Formats: sequence, structure tokens, C-alpha cells
Amino acid sequence: MESNIFHLQYAIDTFYFLVCGALVMWMAAGFAMLESGLVRAKNTTEILTKNVALYAVACIMYLVCGYAIMYDGTLLLNGIEQTDAATVLGDFATREDGFEGGAIYSSAADFFFQVVFVATAMSIVSGAVAERMKLWSFLIFAVAMTGVIYPMEGSWTWGGNDVFGLYNLGDLGFSDFAGSGIVHMAGAAAALAGVLLLGARKGKYGPNGEIRAIPGANLPLAALGTFILWMGWFGFNGGSVLKLGDIASANSVAMVFLNTNAAAAGGAIAALITGRLLFGKADLTMLLNGAIAGLVVITAEPSTPSALVSTLWGGLGGVAVVFSIIFLDKLRIDDPVGAISAHGVCGFLGLMLVPITNGGVTFSGQLIGAATIFGWVFLASLLVWGIIKAVMGVRVSEEEEYEGVDLSECGMEAYPEFVSSK
Amino acid sequence: MESNIFHLQYAIDTFYFLVCGALVMWMAAGFAMLESGLVRAKNTTEILTKNVALYAVACIMYLVCGYAIMYDGTLLLNGIEQTDAATVLGDFATREDGFEGGAIYSSAADFFFQVVFVATAMSIVSGAVAERMKLWSFLIFAVAMTGVIYPMEGSWTWGGNDVFGLYNLGDLGFSDFAGSGIVHMAGAAAALAGVLLLGARKGKYGPNGEIRAIPGANLPLAALGTFILWMGWFGFNGGSVLKLGDIASANSVAMVFLNTNAAAAGGAIAALITGRLLFGKADLTMLLNGAIAGLVVITAEPSTPSALVSTLWGGLGGVAVVFSIIFLDKLRIDDPVGAISAHGVCGFLGLMLVPITNGGVTFSGQLIGAATIFGWVFLASLLVWGIIKAVMGVRVSEEEEYEGVDLSECGMEAYPEFVSSK
Amino acid sequence: MESNIFHLQYAIDTFYFLVCGALVMWMAAGFAMLESGLVRAKNTTEILTKNVALYAVACIMYLVCGYAIMYDGTLLLNGIEQTDAATVLGDFATREDGFEGGAIYSSAADFFFQVVFVATAMSIVSGAVAERMKLWSFLIFAVAMTGVIYPMEGSWTWGGNDVFGLYNLGDLGFSDFAGSGIVHMAGAAAALAGVLLLGARKGKYGPNGEIRAIPGANLPLAALGTFILWMGWFGFNGGSVLKLGDIASANSVAMVFLNTNAAAAGGAIAALITGRLLFGKADLTMLLNGAIAGLVVITAEPSTPSALVSTLWGGLGGVAVVFSIIFLDKLRIDDPVGAISAHGVCGFLGLMLVPITNGGVTFSGQLIGAATIFGWVFLASLLVWGIIKAVMGVRVSEEEEYEGVDLSECGMEAYPEFVSSK
Repeated sequence: MESNIFHLQYAIDTFYFLVCGALVMWMAAGFAMLESGLVRAKNTTEILTKNVALYAVACIMYLVCGYAIMYDGTLLLNGIEQTDAATVLGDFATREDGFEGGAIYSSAADFFFQVVFVATAMSIVSGAVAERMKLWSFLIFAVAMTGVIYPMEGSWTWGGNDVFGLYNLGDLGFSDFAGSGIVHMAGAAAALAGVLLLGARKGKYGPNGEIRAIPGANLPLAALGTFILWMGWFGFNGGSVLKLGDIASANSVAMVFLNTNAAAAGGAIAALITGRLLFGKADLTMLLNGAIAGLVVITAEPSTPSALVSTLWGGLGGVAVVFSIIFLDKLRIDDPVGAISAHGVCGFLGLMLVPITNGGVTFSGQLIGAATIFGWVFLASLLVWGIIKAVMGVRVSEEEEYEGVDLSECGMEAYPEFVSSK
Repeated sequence: MESNIFHLQYAIDTFYFLVCGALVMWMAAGFAMLESGLVRAKNTTEILTKNVALYAVACIMYLVCGYAIMYDGTLLLNGIEQTDAATVLGDFATREDGFEGGAIYSSAADFFFQVVFVATAMSIVSGAVAERMKLWSFLIFAVAMTGVIYPMEGSWTWGGNDVFGLYNLGDLGFSDFAGSGIVHMAGAAAALAGVLLLGARKGKYGPNGEIRAIPGANLPLAALGTFILWMGWFGFNGGSVLKLGDIASANSVAMVFLNTNAAAAGGAIAALITGRLLFGKADLTMLLNGAIAGLVVITAEPSTPSALVSTLWGGLGGVAVVFSIIFLDKLRIDDPVGAISAHGVCGFLGLMLVPITNGGVTFSGQLIGAATIFGWVFLASLLVWGIIKAVMGVRVSEEEEYEGVDLSECGMEAYPEFVSSK
Repeated sequence: MESNIFHLQYAIDTFYFLVCGALVMWMAAGFAMLESGLVRAKNTTEILTKNVALYAVACIMYLVCGYAIMYDGTLLLNGIEQTDAATVLGDFATREDGFEGGAIYSSAADFFFQVVFVATAMSIVSGAVAERMKLWSFLIFAVAMTGVIYPMEGSWTWGGNDVFGLYNLGDLGFSDFAGSGIVHMAGAAAALAGVLLLGARKGKYGPNGEIRAIPGANLPLAALGTFILWMGWFGFNGGSVLKLGDIASANSVAMVFLNTNAAAAGGAIAALITGRLLFGKADLTMLLNGAIAGLVVITAEPSTPSALVSTLWGGLGGVAVVFSIIFLDKLRIDDPVGAISAHGVCGFLGLMLVPITNGGVTFSGQLIGAATIFGWVFLASLLVWGIIKAVMGVRVSEEEEYEGVDLSECGMEAYPEFVSSK
């Protein structure tokens, strides 16, 4: 009898991970649609290629070495071994913390849930470097990012390891529930390093300080991508509770779903109003970035705020992302989709809001954690991008950029039949 | 031991709500894609903006006051309080109806599932008033609709309250399982009020009674939107069983999934054939509206019919939606996406079919319920639209309509690079 | 007490089927987007119409007779009867194999999960015959395929029946976990028969052996479709474990999710590299077909390989699909979307890899099974296509093909406002 309950408990917690993981995988489609909607038609095939390929690279590299670096060195190569029923039942029977303790679930489900997070971090990069980076240089960077750079900082945070044996972020009061910093700001840090080495797109900034808007070619795709991200984020944050199968955990998962949705709503409306006040129009791209900003902000702690506070936190993100996009353009940091603002600036904001609703977390811990993640990912990425630049270059030629990278990199237009005005 | 079973029961029923709620949230993307595919290119950015923003408005307004009006006045503002494990276990232990009684689950999950329904009702409106309404007037209406108008009629139906203290719909034999009337016909009633105040698009109806087709700019998006709605509807109807965790409830949820799918299939094929007989062609937009019509019809009662009867009920919806679209055009009621027909006419049809398979429901109860919902939502909407019209206007200028609302309202084209023939 | 556990067990296994079934239903949208992205603009409305309608036809035909042919002759018409709680509890109580035995779950959930598989098989056909087949001829074939042809071979495999009373595939050591052969190769066999009768699109092959590329009109849709298929495949393979609710089953479901994802990643990267070596470019359509190829290959056995072996198996599929597409073009077999290669060739490859990791399966059994499925579906399809051709024709006129089937079959352009260069 008791063993039957353990069977069900294990099955429920495993299934919960798998459903949430499938939703996070779906976010890869969200990034692909968002980015392909926001670039020009002539660079669309390439950004699609990058997004599909980077997801595949992330899956392979995290399997080959990433997961082992982040969590467990014995898991190199095909070492995802599942525990048999008898052993699992023994674990349940002997645990001292009773039924309400930590979840016991399939190790394969755990890997599946983790691997889709790596891909998310990498997806953030592809948008920021769009329209001028060499495809194969990008994919080589993806190998380094998903195989080593992300897993290293992941090992210091969710993995619990000391940072280079020097200090432990958990001991310092750092907490990042589902990855505002560990995933989103990390992706933005890698993107920023790439953008700085790469430079702006031709024509984006004029000689006299002009900033020229380069509109995206297909806004329905951008809106679709945002809706996909919004939906996938329920898995991203909801699965990060790590357990469903008792009353307290189920309550927590439900609160996380609710707050994730509320923060996205708050971010969307705040960005819409901010855009209206600044530009006099209802700016769709700001609205979309506002929703994403709200999602990024709440990701650091979606379980402790109330729904109304979550809406407010999201709203802060929605305001921040608009001003950050304007500010980065003033600095001539060219990010075609606003990824550094939405994931980097708002990821940092999310980390700094955690101590307000979660008493066990300190501002100093959050600052040190943010500095550690950003410093490591930015510097390691700069090194890797630098090596790639020296060996094979990172930027396409001026002529290729003018003609569009679709032809030079992929040999294929995204919309070959539609007459373009550009 | 027993408490462990209660833990799992609670977790399962909570997770079931969350998964279904995420699917309903996904319907917001479905409406956005459907509507952006069926409008002209020059009005696409605006309809996307409206759809993302209305979803966000619905989430905020239902949190601030809607849920409190509909279900529980003590829940104003941030009052979504979850019950702790000890209290929940106490509730389970003392209930008299045993294991097979009503579900006990997270209140946050309940709110999450409810809030996405409000957004669905509001999404229906955006398509009908497309291509000529002022964006900000629409969003102000969304505040009233999601914060007050929908919650009021919701309180008389799912909330169980008397209608203005006069009569109780439940006592009269009214039943609307997942909202053919409460959600879909309500959305259509608000849409109809808006359309009547707004008038038809320029050029839709000629001076001599001509009805001119205004084709949608991007039919793959319309088809995608329909598939998204079809998928999301499994959550919409499936979650409305309100409990998964016993054999009878699980059987009911499964039957609802199956019947929802069957009715959509029946509606699609019936509309395809009807269109073929009337127009001589396989009309894709009728096919899509037929699938939606089938879904709307079965929503009033997806648990009692057999799968074959559900297919038939869906088929009746598929025929009805085609004739309704033709008829509304004859009346010069201009609904660019067919929302009033698919959600209003078929929502009413769905309500009236319930007594045939559900013995506890009466035709008179259904009629009174339908009249109550339609009357309240239509009149309250007419009043709110009227006030908005008096204060700030509801319709863009003729020139803005000619140029497209994307430029005037959003300052941004949806497809800026593609040369248009219009 | 014990009965309460059975209640939960039943609910969990039922819900798992429903979630997986909804994901497989979602694959219909994936095929629709993939195919509408890969055809020319002038044939887009028609392929969307075909994809929505074929899904609906499959749902109706499998309900009317397909399920009865495949599994249980007593289930003709509306015979999906669910077992009441008391009987289910009795079944649980008396079973000899204990808690870890086969799943007991809702028969409606079982039907729902099965019916979406039929639609998948049929979706494969629509892409291969695109751009030149008559719409109504296609839909009549869909009636035969989903009502009889697929259910017959399904009855010999998953149904366990002898092949025409002569031999039993299960006894011969045949195994096809989730349908590499039963669903995917079967769909490809029906497609091949249609393509052979239909002939190539005008202009595809020149008089001197030239093979002309006919690019797809909207590659973001093709990428979106692939992501949708990738996501939906978690349900396709994951649900095919058929049980979730004990530790061993949950482990198996988790492994299947992980391996499905790994194989898609392997297929994508392998096809990307193969395309680069052959064509010198990063070919997006090959990348997409590589991911699908990896998914098809692993479908025959996603539970026994390790994740690394699954990546490798997927990679073999990714290489195979590229060479198969090239080879079929040399044979002048015109398959606009590569469906016969991705689903047929890779479906066969998947079947032949099973014995390597699953000791209970034999190469001879797999060969006989593959020959049986292919032989039956190909010949039966050829007969049905032949009758349709004789009665009403299968191919549109040359002029209709030149103008695009959207106008002749649907009377509606997919992108009426965008100026086309073709």
C-alpha cells in the first residue's frame, strides 16, 4: 500500500517536470519567431537557421559535458542512469523528512528540464547579434557557451559549488529561483560581449549621432513569438519549484503560474503606457518587450510575492526595458531585438527585487551573485568571441551585409516571392 | 498514510487546473493570429497590439476587482490566499462526501484558470471591431468588460448569485458547462454593441446593397490561429470539469477532450461542405469558422453527448456559422472575422442543445439564461461604448481608416518591406 | 483507502494520455505550417484547407469505423463506453499483476490518443502531393486512408491481429514503439503511391535531366512547423509508453522525452553539416528535415537507447534524409516538402535500428513488418488513388496549376495584398 503511494508520487513529480520541460522547449520556437519577426526580410532565413541549430547544439553539448560540469562529474557522456523501482522505494521508505520532503523523480526528467534552460540562455544571444554575424562563428560560440560557460556559472549557483573555490553564493544569501540572472542575464552578458566585438549594423547610427529605426519585417511573427514565450514561461518558472506532489509544493507551483502571468501582464501594460508617453503611439515592439521584461523580472522570485506585487514588479520591468533600449541606442550598442535590455537589465532588476519579498535573501548576496555571473559570462564570452574573431572572423563582409546574410550564409531567401521595397 | 493520498489528490487536481489554464492562455495567441490573418495588412500591427494588451488588461482587472465581483467579495486586491497543508488535510479528513466529492485544490490555480477565461471573452470583441476602432477606446472598454461586465454575469451563473436579487438561473434549470453563453455569447454581445455604434468599414457595403469581400492579408496566420484555438479548447472545456482526481471525474475529463475534438471536426467538415454547396469552392475562412463554431457549440455541454452526437452538434454549428455570416452581411452588420456568428449565434445554439443530452437542464432555463447574459452584456456594453464614444470617440477618421490604423495608432507597419497591391 | 489510490492511479494515467494526445493534435498545426511554408504562395490556401480538413476527416472516419477495425469491432459508431468507478475498482482489486501491471485508464482517453495518430499519418500525404492535386480527390482519399487503410495495418501491429490470418508480426519479433513504420512510413507509402500516379509539378524537371529548385514562399512558417512537430512529438512518443503511474513507467516516459529530443537535435546537426558539405551553405530546409528525420528514426524505439545513442540514431536519420531527397529527385519523384524521405526512408531506418538496442526484436521481424506495412499501404493506396483518378481525376488542369490551385480550388489567395515576383 505505502509503496503504491510512492509509485504515484514519483510518477506525478516526474510528469510535472516533463510537461514543464516541454513548455520550456517551446520557448525555442518563441525566440525563433520573435527574432525572425524583428529582423529584415533579407536576414530571416539565417536567424531561423541559427535558432534551430543553437537549440540542437545546446542539447548535444549539455549532454556531452555541460550537465556534468554543472551538477555531477560522473555523468559524462551517456551516464544518465535511472534508478530502478526497488531502489526508489527504498529511498522513500528510509527518508527522515517524511512525505513532504524534497521530490524524488526520474533523473532523465531532471536532465530534460535542465537542458532546455541552456538553450534558452543561448537563444537570447542570437537576437542581439542578428543581421551581421557569421553563422558558423555563432554556432562555434554556441558550443562553448552551452558546453562550458553557462554550466560553470550554473555550478556556482544551482549546482551549489564554490566560485573557483573562493566563496559560495548560497552562503552569501544569493537566490535566483528560476534564472533571472543565471539564465537571462547570463545570455545577455554573452550577447553584450558579442555585440561589442561585432559593432553596429551598417546604417544604424549616422555620423552626426542619428539613430535610425530599422523596422522588423514581420510583426505577427514577433507577437506570436512573445505569446509562445509567455506560455513557455509557465514551465520555466513553474517547473523550477522542483516538486509538485504535496500540498505546499502544489500551492507554490500554482502561485508561480499565477505570478508569472501577472508579471507579464504588468510589464506589457507598463511598457505600452511608457511608450505612449514617450513616443505618442502604441508601440507594439515595446509592448512585446514589456511582457518579456515582466517575465524576466519575476523569474528571480515568483513564489513569494502576491499577485498584485508581481504585477507591479513586472511593471517596473516594463518601464525599465523601454528606457534601457533607448539608452543602449545612445551608447551605440546595437541590439536589433532588445535582448540585452529585456534579459540583461531586467534580469538584474529581478535579482535585486528578491530580498523585498523573500527574507532569506540579502541585497549584498544578490549583488555579488549578479557580479559573479555577469563578470564570468561576459569575460569568458569576450575571450571566446575574440578567439573566433582572430581565427575565422565574426562579421560578414559589407557586401554580404548589404545583400542580406540569407543569401551568403544560407543560399536561400525567406520570402522569395514577395517583392521587397528595400 | 491517508494524509499522503490527500497530498497527491490535491497536487493532481491543482496541476490539472494549471495545465488547462496554460492551454486557455494559449488561446489568446490563437485569437491574435486568427484576427491578424483576417484583417488587411495595413491594420495588422494594431490588431496585434490590441490582442496582447487586452489579455494583459484582463489579467490585471480580474485581479483587482473581477474575481471578487464574480465569486467572493473578500478577495479584493491581493487577497488570493492559499490554504496551508494542515488546514487542507483537515478539510479532506472531515468531509462527509468521501474521496469522490468535489475537488480540493489551490486557490491560486483556481484564479489562474478563471482569469484566462475573461481574456477569452474579451478577445472575441477585438476581431469584430477591427480595422476602424480607436485603439485606446477599445482598451478602455476592455477595462470595463473584464473588470465589471463579464464578472457580473459570471456571478449570476458560475458564481451562483441571484440576478439582481430577482431570480436564480441555476434554480431555473440553466446550465452552461464551460461557457458557450457565459464566455462566448457574452463576448459576441459586447462585440455586437460595439459594431452597431461603430458602423461598417468604408467600402464594405455599396450604395446599391452590394456586399464587397475584404480578404484577409495572411491566411496561414488565420489557420494557425484556428489550430491554436482548437488545442487551447481542450483546456477550456477539459478544465471546466473542475476535478480530475477520481475515476468518474477522470472519465468525464477524457470524454470532454474527445467530444471537444469531435465537435470541432464536425463543424469544420459541415462548414466546408456548406461553403462548397453555396459558393462552389472550398472556402478556407468558412472551414476555419466552422471548426470554431463546432467548438463553441459543444462548450455548453461537452460531457454528456456521445462522440458521434458531439460531431453532429459541431456540424450544426458549422452550418449555422456560414448562414449567420451571410445573414449579418445582409443586415450590414460588419464583422471582419465572423466573431459574432461563430461565438454569438453558435454560443446560443450550444446552450439550446444542452437539454437534449442533459436531463437536468430545461429549455426554458436555457432561454432565460441566454436572455439574461445577452441582455446584460449587450446593454451594459452599449452604455460603456456610448460613453466612450461621447467622451473620446470610438472610430478613427476616414483618412486614418484609409491609410490603415497601423500608422495612426501604432506608428508602425506590420510588413514594412513587402510591396502591397492595395 | 486502497480504492483511493486506484482512483488517483486511474486519474493520472488518464490525464497523461490526454496531455500527450493534445500534443499530438498540435502536430496537425505543425504539418500545416511546415507545408504552407514550403509551397509557393499561389498554392498556400489550398494546402491549409487540406490540412485542416484532413484532420477533421480523420477524426470522423476513425470514430465511425477506423478504431473498430483496428482494435475492437464492437466499438462501431458511438460505442466509446467508459467503465464506471465501481467496475474499475473491481478490476484493480482483482488483477494478479499488482500495482505495476498495465495501466487502467479511460477508454475515451485511449480513443483520443489513437485518433490523433491517424491524422498524423494522413498529414504526411498532403505535403508530398502538394501544388498539383485536386482538393476533393485528396479528401476522398483521406476518407479511405483514415477509415480503412491505416486501421488495417494498425490492426496487424498495435492491434495484434494476424495479417490476413496468415502470420502474426508480434510473434515474428516485430516491434514499432510509437510508429516509425506504422504511422510515418505508412503515410509515406500512401504519399508515394499518389505521387507516382500524379507525376511531377510542371517545370520541376527539365527535358535534359535538369532538376529545378522550387523554393518555398514563407520559411518562417516552415521553421515554426518544425518546432511544433518537435514539441508535439513528446506526446507522440511519450504517450506511447501507455502508462505513467508507477516508477518504472515514469522512468520510461522520461527517457522517451529525453531521447526524442536528443534524436531531433542529432538529426538537425547532422543534416546541417551534410548540407554544408554538399552545397557549401547552411541549408535551412535540410536542417528542418533533419530534425524531423531524427524524430522519425527514434520513434521506432525511444525507450531503450541511451541519450547519446539516440543523438547518433537521429544523426543517421539527418544524413539519410539529405541523400534521400537528392536521390528521389534523380528518380524524378517530385515531393515538394521531402515527406517521403523524412517519414518513409527514415521510418524504415528507424525500424531497422530497433534490434540493436532492444534484444527482444529481430531484424527479420522488422523487415517482414516493414514489407507488410509498406506493401499493404502502397498497394491499397494505389488502388484507391487509381479509382479516384478514373472517376474524377486527381490532377488539376495545366492552366489551374500555372495559376495556382488557390484560385481554382479555394477561390481565395493566401496573401492577396503582397505583390508576387512569380
